[in-house]
Amino acid sequence: MEKKKKAIILSSGGLDSTTAMAVAKNNGFQLYSLSFDYGQRHLLELKASERVAEAMDVVEHLVIKIDMKAIGGSALTDRFDVPKNSSLNKEEQQIPITYVPARNTIFLSFALAWAEVLEVEDIFIGVNAIDYSGYPDCRLEYIRAFEKMANLATKAGVEKKFEIKIQIPLINMTKADIIRLGIRLGVDYGLTHSCYDPSLDGKACGECDSCCLRKKGFEEAGLKDPVLCVR
Amino acid sequence: MEKKKKAIILSSGGLDSTTAMAVAKNNGFQLYSLSFDYGQRHLLELKASERVAEAMDVVEHLVIKIDMKAIGGSALTDRFDVPKNSSLNKEEQQIPITYVPARNTIFLSFALAWAEVLEVEDIFIGVNAIDYSGYPDCRLEYIRAFEKMANLATKAGVEKKFEIKIQIPLINMTKADIIRLGIRLGVDYGLTHSCYDPSLDGKACGECDSCCLRKKGFEEAGLKDPVLCVR
Repeated sequence: MEKKKKAIILSSGGLDSTTAMAVAKNNGFQLYSLSFDYGQRHLLELKASERVAEAMDVVEHLVIKIDMKAIGGSALTDRFDVPKNSSLNKEEQQIPITYVPARNTIFLSFALAWAEVLEVEDIFIGVNAIDYSGYPDCRLEYIRAFEKMANLATKAGVEKKFEIKIQIPLINMTKADIIRLGIRLGVDYGLTHSCYDPSLDGKACGECDSCCLRKKGFEEAGLKDPVLCVR
Repeated sequence: MEKKKKAIILSSGGLDSTTAMAVAKNNGFQLYSLSFDYGQRHLLELKASERVAEAMDVVEHLVIKIDMKAIGGSALTDRFDVPKNSSLNKEEQQIPITYVPARNTIFLSFALAWAEVLEVEDIFIGVNAIDYSGYPDCRLEYIRAFEKMANLATKAGVEKKFEIKIQIPLINMTKADIIRLGIRLGVDYGLTHSCYDPSLDGKACGECDSCCLRKKGFEEAGLKDPVLCVR
């Protein structure tokens, strides 16, 4: 029997990365999930990523601690207030203050390092450019530029043994599409966590950008979100 | 008087990054130095980077702790032996085991995050592609690919307010050229540390790849290295 190919999946424990992981699993990859303890204001994300890793039967779930607080500049790592019920997807929208500077670049760089060590070609990331938060590092052209750089950065690329591929199965999907796909692949969204500003007992606020996108997605898909909100 | 432009300099406390910093200073930049506590086997590098930061009168010296050990795969973070008196610069040379997977990509990604927060356009890195260790992430084409990606990754690039430039003043210089340049710019190389495998009391081994390159450089420049070796 042919040995299964390995893939690394960036996992935040949220809806998108969990669906991306389900796609990788469905494509027959052995899963290696990677999460970051980066000084985000709450650690519920990390607990969700552990639950997801277990449910998806990953070979290894690695959590890397990095100090993004030292750099600052985001509502997710600093003490700014997370904005509520802001108008997403407006034409003139600014990049929101929940944007963490260069976050996906840092996360993908660690994934790249791990890929070199494990000799993995495929790195999955759940970015999408439709129902998204307006972050620059979620766009296709950014991902393709990262991929090009990655193949010049590494032993892998130089020795031409293999080629790093940044897999972005959700890039052109709406949130509703993503949810429908996940449900079809058997994802239990009750394990995931998306809220930027949960209550002390871990309930989603229902009002931050991430909750609003998620709510809209479940509504459009005609499904009920198994994750409860505070209100 | 016009306000000085800021620059971020990746500093390892070694010969190359210290010379790159001296170039930035000489070009009139306000200096922000960035070092990493990444589980390297000794912390002498970090002490050297602090001494250099002080001598160069930087505005801020930031040390970010990251867990590269979790990823492994290098003699500099794992328990492999550091190779001694290996033949550098051979045609068929393999990438040495002191190579840390995706290290420059990870370091530059953090520099990019800090650049976004500080609104800095210029990031200096002391890579050079002549007397170097054969690491893939020290080549010009890699640096240019990173730069392109960086300008797609960030707020800065999207809002077109400014453009990230990865400054590589040493890229085409021999080690001897670098040392001559540094001396002309007033660098005290006695503050720097290059050895991969120092003795317990902090003396350079004189035999690892990094020591060999440094020794060759000082010899070719006809100068005496102020840093003493064990033998």
